[in-house]
Amino acid sequence: MPNFPEPIENAIKEISKLPGIGKKSALRIVYFLLKEGSPAIESLESALSTLKNSIELCPKCRGYKEKNLECSICADAKRDKTTICVVESTQDMHLIDSSSGFRGNYFVLHGLVSPVKGATPESLKIDELKKKIEEDGIKEIIIATPYTAEGEATASYIISLVEGGSVKISRIGMGIPIGSELSYVDSETLSRALALRREIK
Amino acid sequence: MPNFPEPIENAIKEISKLPGIGKKSALRIVYFLLKEGSPAIESLESALSTLKNSIELCPKCRGYKEKNLECSICADAKRDKTTICVVESTQDMHLIDSSSGFRGNYFVLHGLVSPVKGATPESLKIDELKKKIEEDGIKEIIIATPYTAEGEATASYIISLVEGGSVKISRIGMGIPIGSELSYVDSETLSRALALRREIK
Repeated sequence: MPNFPEPIENAIKEISKLPGIGKKSALRIVYFLLKEGSPAIESLESALSTLKNSIELCPKCRGYKEKNLECSICADAKRDKTTICVVESTQDMHLIDSSSGFRGNYFVLHGLVSPVKGATPESLKIDELKKKIEEDGIKEIIIATPYTAEGEATASYIISLVEGGSVKISRIGMGIPIGSELSYVDSETLSRALALRREIK
Repeated sequence: MPNFPEPIENAIKEISKLPGIGKKSALRIVYFLLKEGSPAIESLESALSTLKNSIELCPKCRGYKEKNLECSICADAKRDKTTICVVESTQDMHLIDSSSGFRGNYFVLHGLVSPVKGATPESLKIDELKKKIEEDGIKEIIIATPYTAEGEATASYIISLVEGGSVKISRIGMGIPIGSELSYVDSETLSRALALRREIK
């Protein structure tokens, strides 16, 4: 077949830049949109435009919030404002908030310390975290970055930054996931899980 | 977690209307776009807008073509203009053109005859096919609708419409797919494949 008309080629190119979407899925989406016609494309365009224009970072937790509105998490009076959970991304914040019983506040790094990727403590605004601890009477910090090299490096940096004060610092639990067979867990996790065993009785 | 900010909720809703994208994938895409920022969202918006404004149906084959340009298939002088392959969708047209040796022209139905879905021969413009046959000196029609109830009904309708004239009518081959074990093929296909056996020697 000769190439697709240029506007179709371009739409495929742009759509396949999205995570989890390959060329074939992008083509399927383009055909779907062409079949549905202008109203479907317009409501997608309008959603994208609103997303671009109405979302900003919350100056307190650095999660996403709607412009001119308060952040629903930071403004929630029922939450414990003295405990902050530090996470890599807003996805992680959402995961923790929807699956765990945690009802404190958050601080989103939008990345992990990584010299290779050019992500420094400055670019991640970790100093703002320190300021927040000093100004807001924070009592506990839970570092929920992943147990990867970058996640551990980030955790170490945060610990070195805030230790010495009166704030309690903890790290999210590490070990065998619920429902996972031991044979599927890597040996490093297994040996750390043994070292971090909890006494039952 | 409290609900997402409304613009995020709305973007998730719109994106998860696309084929093959569920709520979780849509959320991932929204986070990706927010992280990438305005330029990424703008190039996607612009691709959608061009798609909406610059693509139209080719009046000859009813495939998609760019406005103010000729359809690359219908305008291709190397193609056999006397043979038309009738397909359900532009996807099918693309599949046939890129995988087979077929180098004739096409006619896209954009659906199959289905009283349940309100798709009639009129809405599928099958009459245009008849007109095309009469006016353009078509010698052969290959009906490449699928071997489903609707695909067969559509094929029957087209056959009843054009038979009696001098045009040759054929139906795309039916049988066991290459590389498929017989045990994975349904019994109806198997019995039809036996009835449609080809003599080798």
